[in-house]
Amino acid sequence: MRILGVDPGLRKTGFGVIEVQGQHLHYVASGTIIVPTDEPLAQRLQVILMHLREIVTMHQPTHSAVEQVFVNTNPHTTLLLGQARGAALCALADSGLEVHEYTALQIKKTVVGRGHAAKEQVQQMVQHLLRLNGTPAPDAADALACALCHAHHAPLQQRLLNQNTLTTTQLRTRGGRFIGK
Amino acid sequence: MRILGVDPGLRKTGFGVIEVQGQHLHYVASGTIIVPTDEPLAQRLQVILMHLREIVTMHQPTHSAVEQVFVNTNPHTTLLLGQARGAALCALADSGLEVHEYTALQIKKTVVGRGHAAKEQVQQMVQHLLRLNGTPAPDAADALACALCHAHHAPLQQRLLNQNTLTTTQLRTRGGRFIGK
Repeated sequence: MRILGVDPGLRKTGFGVIEVQGQHLHYVASGTIIVPTDEPLAQRLQVILMHLREIVTMHQPTHSAVEQVFVNTNPHTTLLLGQARGAALCALADSGLEVHEYTALQIKKTVVGRGHAAKEQVQQMVQHLLRLNGTPAPDAADALACALCHAHHAPLQQRLLNQNTLTTTQLRTRGGRFIGK
Repeated sequence: MRILGVDPGLRKTGFGVIEVQGQHLHYVASGTIIVPTDEPLAQRLQVILMHLREIVTMHQPTHSAVEQVFVNTNPHTTLLLGQARGAALCALADSGLEVHEYTALQIKKTVVGRGHAAKEQVQQMVQHLLRLNGTPAPDAADALACALCHAHHAPLQQRLLNQNTLTTTQLRTRGGRFIGK
């Protein structure tokens, strides 16, 4: 499983790719898409779309994960972030990837162990978990943390999915109740 | 000049294409992209991207226009609208179109003559200006109104652009002041 994590923003969009082999996590790539601020909005959003498309082509992820955002206190910022997020999400879906969303709380709990960890702690834990030589930049670290969160949750999701498939196809049920194999 | 107007929304995205030939405006096509509400967000945004791409391929617009939104009183709605708008804007830019943005006030003033016109008045004026047999659906009417607004403003923009080119290349100026040809 190769996961692309994305942290969308209208100035900087972070991305991070990791590879999961059994219990082992490997760093593949990460970086920040710098979005030109002097271009019209549509062109800025296109930059996000095009770069994410390139990253998918280059690193061939099989899954993608994006942080679920909550509304900002400043409604204007919420609208701008929403637009950047819209461009990123449809770029990932358009590249044929399933998109998984996680809240900041889930991500921090998975990576640091506490839901209210500081940004620096996330950066340090990402560095530690992926055995990196240096601390990744904040946006790239957030994207990698998001990918790590999916690496942690995906096997659980898969198990639940398999369980459900088992229930409906291989187990005998009556009125939704399990009555034996 | 063939203009594609878009009214983005996460449930319904309206579109309308008009052709401008000198002083004459011709209706080409319009409709509503119905976005499935039971799909994950990324897939819903991809529906907007894919349909707008198809519309561009089918009707070959040369320009595009989208309503500039203002933040909603409900921040959650603002975020959802922002994401739909982000998908629409990057779809248009990705199709190679310049994207022009107009405020609701500019659109209503251009189409109805008053900035605070009701939705029905916009629909009626769109029907009248484009000599349609029936009233277009609200989302399609808003998209057509946006295209009509650009048809009105584009020649002015072009004239200003030409003027600027003239000033800097063909006219003699000193300290920004015009001193003769």
